[in-house]
Amino acid sequence: MKKVKTMHSLMPLPIEMTLADKELVIDSEFRIELSGHVEPRLERAAMRLSERLAQITGISMHRDQSAAREDATLLIHVDEKVAEVQSATEDESYTLDITAKIAVLRSRKLYGALRGIETFVQLVRQSDYGFVVPAVRIKDRPRFPWRGLLIDVTRHWIPPAVIIRNLEAMASVKMNVLHWHLTDDQGFRIESYRYPKLHELGSDGLFYTQDDVREIVEFASDRGIRVLPEFDMPGHTSSWFVGYPDLASAPGPYRIERNWGGHEATMDPTREETYEFISNFLSEMVTLFPDLYVHVGGDEVSGKQWQGNPDILKFMVSEGIKDTRHLQAYFNCRLHGILNKLGREMVGWDPILHADLPEKSIVQSVRGQKWLAEAVCNGFQGVAGSEYYLDLLRPAEFHYGSDPFGAEAAELTTKQQSLIIGGEASMWTEFANAENIDSRIWPRAATVAERLWSSRNVTDVEDMYRRLAEVSRLLDWTGITHKSGPRRMLYRLTDYGSIKALSTLAEILRPSFDTRWENHDYTSLTPLNRLVDATVPDSEKVRRFSRMVEQFIADPSDIVLQDALETQLRVWLYNHVELEQDIQQSQLLTELGPLSETLTHVAEIGLQSLAVLTTGKRMVHTEWEKQMIQLKKATDPITEVVLLIVPDIQKLNKAVRTVR
Amino acid sequence: MKKVKTMHSLMPLPIEMTLADKELVIDSEFRIELSGHVEPRLERAAMRLSERLAQITGISMHRDQSAAREDATLLIHVDEKVAEVQSATEDESYTLDITAKIAVLRSRKLYGALRGIETFVQLVRQSDYGFVVPAVRIKDRPRFPWRGLLIDVTRHWIPPAVIIRNLEAMASVKMNVLHWHLTDDQGFRIESYRYPKLHELGSDGLFYTQDDVREIVEFASDRGIRVLPEFDMPGHTSSWFVGYPDLASAPGPYRIERNWGGHEATMDPTREETYEFISNFLSEMVTLFPDLYVHVGGDEVSGKQWQGNPDILKFMVSEGIKDTRHLQAYFNCRLHGILNKLGREMVGWDPILHADLPEKSIVQSVRGQKWLAEAVCNGFQGVAGSEYYLDLLRPAEFHYGSDPFGAEAAELTTKQQSLIIGGEASMWTEFANAENIDSRIWPRAATVAERLWSSRNVTDVEDMYRRLAEVSRLLDWTGITHKSGPRRMLYRLTDYGSIKALSTLAEILRPSFDTRWENHDYTSLTPLNRLVDATVPDSEKVRRFSRMVEQFIADPSDIVLQDALETQLRVWLYNHVELEQDIQQSQLLTELGPLSETLTHVAEIGLQSLAVLTTGKRMVHTEWEKQMIQLKKATDPITEVVLLIVPDIQKLNKAVRTVR
Repeated sequence: MKKVKTMHSLMPLPIEMTLADKELVIDSEFRIELSGHVEPRLERAAMRLSERLAQITGISMHRDQSAAREDATLLIHVDEKVAEVQSATEDESYTLDITAKIAVLRSRKLYGALRGIETFVQLVRQSDYGFVVPAVRIKDRPRFPWRGLLIDVTRHWIPPAVIIRNLEAMASVKMNVLHWHLTDDQGFRIESYRYPKLHELGSDGLFYTQDDVREIVEFASDRGIRVLPEFDMPGHTSSWFVGYPDLASAPGPYRIERNWGGHEATMDPTREETYEFISNFLSEMVTLFPDLYVHVGGDEVSGKQWQGNPDILKFMVSEGIKDTRHLQAYFNCRLHGILNKLGREMVGWDPILHADLPEKSIVQSVRGQKWLAEAVCNGFQGVAGSEYYLDLLRPAEFHYGSDPFGAEAAELTTKQQSLIIGGEASMWTEFANAENIDSRIWPRAATVAERLWSSRNVTDVEDMYRRLAEVSRLLDWTGITHKSGPRRMLYRLTDYGSIKALSTLAEILRPSFDTRWENHDYTSLTPLNRLVDATVPDSEKVRRFSRMVEQFIADPSDIVLQDALETQLRVWLYNHVELEQDIQQSQLLTELGPLSETLTHVAEIGLQSLAVLTTGKRMVHTEWEKQMIQLKKATDPITEVVLLIVPDIQKLNKAVRTVR
Repeated sequence: MKKVKTMHSLMPLPIEMTLADKELVIDSEFRIELSGHVEPRLERAAMRLSERLAQITGISMHRDQSAAREDATLLIHVDEKVAEVQSATEDESYTLDITAKIAVLRSRKLYGALRGIETFVQLVRQSDYGFVVPAVRIKDRPRFPWRGLLIDVTRHWIPPAVIIRNLEAMASVKMNVLHWHLTDDQGFRIESYRYPKLHELGSDGLFYTQDDVREIVEFASDRGIRVLPEFDMPGHTSSWFVGYPDLASAPGPYRIERNWGGHEATMDPTREETYEFISNFLSEMVTLFPDLYVHVGGDEVSGKQWQGNPDILKFMVSEGIKDTRHLQAYFNCRLHGILNKLGREMVGWDPILHADLPEKSIVQSVRGQKWLAEAVCNGFQGVAGSEYYLDLLRPAEFHYGSDPFGAEAAELTTKQQSLIIGGEASMWTEFANAENIDSRIWPRAATVAERLWSSRNVTDVEDMYRRLAEVSRLLDWTGITHKSGPRRMLYRLTDYGSIKALSTLAEILRPSFDTRWENHDYTSLTPLNRLVDATVPDSEKVRRFSRMVEQFIADPSDIVLQDALETQLRVWLYNHVELEQDIQQSQLLTELGPLSETLTHVAEIGLQSLAVLTTGKRMVHTEWEKQMIQLKKATDPITEVVLLIVPDIQKLNKAVRTVR
């Protein structure tokens, strides 16, 4: 027996699980049997499971069932039929019992079986007997019924194939809502037959055809994922007005906006024609989206256009609407009326919160947990959004540590908390495009998926990162390019030279979202082909280095640690010598000189601190102060990236002061 | 000015080209203008070009033409309309003139423009001004009009997405025929409404729907690629007979064959019902495939079933057919009659060659150049096939060195040679599946593409490999997984540990096709997840090492070379120490112990030889002999791979003898 893997790598972690020391072998004779209520979606899911096992293991699965083994390897039993349209509160519970002979997956409804299949896939591992799943008993169900991923397809165009592979990835971590941000100032990304100038003039030709949409909705449905379309109104609507300026509260012409931040374009909520248009448009859209909910946005309505329009001001006076906030509430009531006639309910960002908001509406937080708490205090259902903005490029542990019941929501009563039905990770695309969006969403979204599925007390960050690394590998097999994309980008950066030195630098960086956001030169046409675009927020390398530094400071006499730290610091010290050659060879690398040199300086200070700490020889105080200032400066972003090891070197530098 | 790239990396090499020392900048303002005869395929090609440039450069291309620069960056002019269906002899010539201000691509027909667009893409490179194409004048046209790639989708199932991305790759090196080997003993891979038991019982459910086929044919047509379907008859037909055993010459039942080599299943050419079936079936198929040609296979007809069937023997006597070869000719004449009624001509493998073969038939060589020569001597058009079997996993230079006019075809008259209309690279899939087929086809197929497009005197192997490396990078952007696939497989092999030591070994190996072919245990269910499956035939590493060894032997006093060789040999010497750890961790690596140890021994001999050659100290003759024997043994494949550095070490070892 070469190795026994006693740990599993499930993410999200199931509610209850018991592992046994046995294994069920997965080979080419693997066979699935379905029983109970078998619907075509379950059959297709079983087929996909075989294909995915074949992919992960490299073993062709026997298709000729008559020739395969008689007993099934995996029995899937579903008790009951589900309604045609997936609701926001489906039963997703399942049990999975695996022995050395057979695996049995049972669920009351289809959705539980779909979730259990993903658990099965995550259990696959290598052993001395080849590929196996461990013997296990799992009883599982989600903590929240609404576990979403928002993808903004407006700031940068995200082609259908990218959406498709992200749905596959969402399914693999049991997420069940694709929140599709389809329209904004920067683009109107869905085809409308009724109002063709919306997509024709509002998208630069980059939009989903209705066939694309149907395919995506069906693909999602097959995986138990609801598709929630967002048509952001009445603000964020510049792209609508390019073709239909009469909808706006101020005269046009309008153009597709190419820069970021708030724009003033706002629908005119006082004209009946506006509601006629919205009604016709939404009537068409609901034929494409079967979900009960439509997201109507409602964020960042500046009110400037309203205040500047005498007709609108007159309307407000005559209707007794005291301010623009109440005018938006009026608009939302009308919107709600339209949706209700179409058999739909609305979801909106927290600025829609208002006494007049129709009661079945769902409020999604965008300005912080405070607003989520506020929404449920007022009796609305709430979806946690603000803490899970993936585009801010914070490390996974940040999102992992944010609970829907946390911060301001912690003070709520149990009954109020029960109105918080889940959350959504959000991927806004000001600084992401089809090439690198996967690397911005994954694997971090998996930690949000776990936060929303698993028990609240599952909070071990170390174990999360361990499992996240395994999930990341699995995602690689689903076609997600979170690993291959940045790698290819590094090659482009070196003009297809060696990426060794550049990788050494890249793996200890994180992109600085704030620096970019503050740079108002950015538009949708700014190239995203720089190092910052190929850099991801979590660094396993730096996590390991931080641990070593901490241990070393606690015990500077540990020779093994001394050696390891010195070796690592020397790699960083000399990296610039190599990278400088590459910089000479590639125009795209030109900007990196100062950053790369900073790494050299920081590593040098680290080595000097190390020497002081190991030899006990004191450092001249002015020298130490100089270093401290240098390090402080090195914490600033350079070329929009942050050197992640600086805080660790600062710890070493600080420890030097204790040497007297 | 940091660097000047004086070389380009075009493949296939154009017929005429002149490079100038100027550059045209590619930025987000890049704009294409079309003129002359503009058909939708050209518009789509222009759109794709923008997208591909955006992909390669990471620069978003401006879609809003009104906002873009006034002058086009690239003007594409096509003179004339083309016929609806692409023929086998289209005009594909084009000229491409690039100055620092504008690029102008001109062609008589659409096809020339499509080829020129690919040249343009291959010209993109980085300079001090960002991404550019060099100023150049190109006049180009293909040497042969038929430049194909055969993909066998029967031995292993190759899903539609894999075909699609391979079409994209074919287009990028100007190949223009997808020869789609759709039926064989191991599978019937296309949906038939007329005879549904063909795909239902003959494919394990792994077949292309007619929608898939239409999509693929259209995708190919958009890229100027003809799709030539192959329905191999009368042999290689087991899968047909599972559902329709009456077609066979011997009673059933039949099953889908799962092992390789020839099978005896053969259609009964004496029954009218056979022709009625074929006629109905082909009538259905020609609605899917617009090409003039249908490939009817015709290879490896064993004749055993015919000789064992008294009715067939009686028929032969009554019709005066003297042997089975003539019976196959009779079958082919009938087949030709059916195809002609459908407005089609036939292509077949060289065994169809026979005095009675209808004159417009095309013969594709499978048994060697001799048969290609034989075909054209007999007045038929010929397509070179036998020298371009990619599945044999020979290095690129082998195929590159094989000319359609070479070997037995060299003796032909110019007029006879003119009947050789091109060639095809063939990818049979006994030992390849969806996971690794890309790495078996690419980048090597590009050298076949060059052989068939460029002048015969373009034969510089060094330069070919240099350009092939660049083509390989471009292919990476088209979605071809020839790089990412094997890399992922290495990770699977180490169970997601480090792949450092395994890569060091893998990059100096080539798979041994022969060893696998001789192993009759292989079936379509044998896992293809071993090191041999992740190994490719060409090793840049070994080519570099070979050059170093040659130079060193010529001048053993070269200290730089001594050092470099020693460093490299030491890496190999110690690799096993590291790999052994990985082997302990992964069951899939277990078999690799002996191979990895062999590398150690070979490297050790190399180091000893090096020492002798540099110090001049003689080696004991018996020791030398022992080493020679060890090296001889090391040339044998181990676990189905060949250690490519052995011949170089043998050269060093041999050189030792000269030290007296």
